[in-house]
Amino acid sequence: MFKAEIKSETLKGLVSIISTLIDEVKFTVNSDGMSLKAVDPAHVAMIELNIGAKAFESYSATETEIGVDLDKVKSVIKLAGPGETIIMEQDEGQGRLVFKIGNITRRMNLIDTSCMNDPKVPQLTLSANIGILVDQLQKGIRAAESISDHIALKADSEGFELSCEGDTDFASLRVEKAALESLKADSKVCSLYPLEYFSNLIKAIPSGTIVNIELDDDYPVKLVFKLANGESTVSYFLAPRIESD
Amino acid sequence: MFKAEIKSETLKGLVSIISTLIDEVKFTVNSDGMSLKAVDPAHVAMIELNIGAKAFESYSATETEIGVDLDKVKSVIKLAGPGETIIMEQDEGQGRLVFKIGNITRRMNLIDTSCMNDPKVPQLTLSANIGILVDQLQKGIRAAESISDHIALKADSEGFELSCEGDTDFASLRVEKAALESLKADSKVCSLYPLEYFSNLIKAIPSGTIVNIELDDDYPVKLVFKLANGESTVSYFLAPRIESD
Amino acid sequence: MFKAEIKSETLKGLVSIISTLIDEVKFTVNSDGMSLKAVDPAHVAMIELNIGAKAFESYSATETEIGVDLDKVKSVIKLAGPGETIIMEQDEGQGRLVFKIGNITRRMNLIDTSCMNDPKVPQLTLSANIGILVDQLQKGIRAAESISDHIALKADSEGFELSCEGDTDFASLRVEKAALESLKADSKVCSLYPLEYFSNLIKAIPSGTIVNIELDDDYPVKLVFKLANGESTVSYFLAPRIESD
Repeated sequence: MFKAEIKSETLKGLVSIISTLIDEVKFTVNSDGMSLKAVDPAHVAMIELNIGAKAFESYSATETEIGVDLDKVKSVIKLAGPGETIIMEQDEGQGRLVFKIGNITRRMNLIDTSCMNDPKVPQLTLSANIGILVDQLQKGIRAAESISDHIALKADSEGFELSCEGDTDFASLRVEKAALESLKADSKVCSLYPLEYFSNLIKAIPSGTIVNIELDDDYPVKLVFKLANGESTVSYFLAPRIESD
Repeated sequence: MFKAEIKSETLKGLVSIISTLIDEVKFTVNSDGMSLKAVDPAHVAMIELNIGAKAFESYSATETEIGVDLDKVKSVIKLAGPGETIIMEQDEGQGRLVFKIGNITRRMNLIDTSCMNDPKVPQLTLSANIGILVDQLQKGIRAAESISDHIALKADSEGFELSCEGDTDFASLRVEKAALESLKADSKVCSLYPLEYFSNLIKAIPSGTIVNIELDDDYPVKLVFKLANGESTVSYFLAPRIESD
Repeated sequence: MFKAEIKSETLKGLVSIISTLIDEVKFTVNSDGMSLKAVDPAHVAMIELNIGAKAFESYSATETEIGVDLDKVKSVIKLAGPGETIIMEQDEGQGRLVFKIGNITRRMNLIDTSCMNDPKVPQLTLSANIGILVDQLQKGIRAAESISDHIALKADSEGFELSCEGDTDFASLRVEKAALESLKADSKVCSLYPLEYFSNLIKAIPSGTIVNIELDDDYPVKLVFKLANGESTVSYFLAPRIESD
């Protein structure tokens, strides 16, 4: 059983993040909230999302799984005006999810989740830890676009740097320690990541959000941030590109 | 002879409605105003439009016919700033229509109307009659998009419903009697219509317009509404899709 | 040596004008400012641009040449927020240009200018001289679009006219002497020009700019206007289309 009411803006924020990675997803539902673990088809990135019951206007559920196509959910969200809420209810007998927005009813078949296994979330201990406003990262990404397919993330005890180097062009954004939310980097660390994955995620994060970056040399980067007024936590892992000599 | 001055917004509203159906049109002109009857190339929908002389800032005409390409008229309307008026004058000797907007002159050859016959407007007696704000219909159409090619219009003594059903998805908008402008439906009626025609028309009607829907089982639907501050009347007929068993 | 700081809006205005004609350009730099002379690949139009040192927030240079790809410069300008300034510095040793916007660094290789020769600017004495607000020209161009590939510019002692004539359509904008900034035309002059070149330039000129048009029968037209708060002067020459009988 699953029935919940959510502000359309909150649902939109959550769906925007997940759909940077994957379209068809399985939510694991219980009385405390919903969660999701997913990797992209190329196994380059992984997302782990927990949405607490308090992220909803109202929430009541027992243990269940809900498989949905996020493109359809996006089209439902567009039907809501600013400030409107969306009621979602699982129609268990017939395997459907029903959305209600004012006098609109929108029903869709659920996706079969029997073959959708949860990926294993890596346990990583990364030496550098940077807290930064997403707006800074978004500015850096705009500068990096069309220069190279990869982006370098670097940290040292003085600050954080995002840079991109091509054959004829170079772009970087340097944020000194004083302009960061937090910084812990005993030694200098640096890794290369695929720009498109990083860029799609960063652009989908709402302005004003603080992103926590865990970084090490030639290791996956782990990005952690909150959505839904702090009631939802996202952990995002992105594999490094390791340059061979 | 035909010479008239019209607010650009009024002309734009009229052209937007007609061009959902057809691009090259014949207006029948006399001293009381202009009128037009047209069917789309597939003979699925028909429009009947009457524009009273009071819809114009100034109007003077004798009996004549004017054949125009609405795409060209649209490009002329775009030249007018907000609040500007457009002067239209038939240059009878040379078969041209001349538009003047401030210090701009735009002249175009008229289309030969000798082969453009007026379609016969059907006389229908339809049992249900619904008055509804177009904004409600526009909301319902947005919900229905990409679910099916057809839309069902239904009425009963309690309210009006617009719905769309596909293989895996369903969307509906239900408006109860109290939220309608008017409702007369002794029994339950329902018909299916091609979504694209219905959608194109409804989207072109200005927000705040009341649309009168005449409806019956498996009959064409007749939509009647006013434009140009009530000085123009549109009747639109759309053929049903009758499902064979 | 070249180092300068410029408001992003000023740089954008200059680049928009030049890139209507050509993408890869050579600036000739000295202590007084920068200049550029270029023709388009088809040799139909020529631009001569002088940017005085006062167009910059700060400026210091010795004689040098800088070859840049304007598409890359455009992407740099997009990184600046409203009111932000852009620092440009030539990295002489390595043939690079470095841009700094806040905490962003953007570096690009310079283009080899050894094969880019300055075109010779024609010395013309044209009989008519019209001063007109660019907004009027922009309005006239919108009316002329999709009617013909050529535009006629005409002047007489009473006013200025821009017109376009196709097989079935005609558009014109007439500006009487009183609505012009200035007018000197002893006799009637008229020439045809390629609409696309004229249109691309006129659309790129900021609203409110006064354009000085020098015109004669079947001669190139010379357009002169100021940018960068009057600290930059553009001269633009466009070859006429001479109709053969």
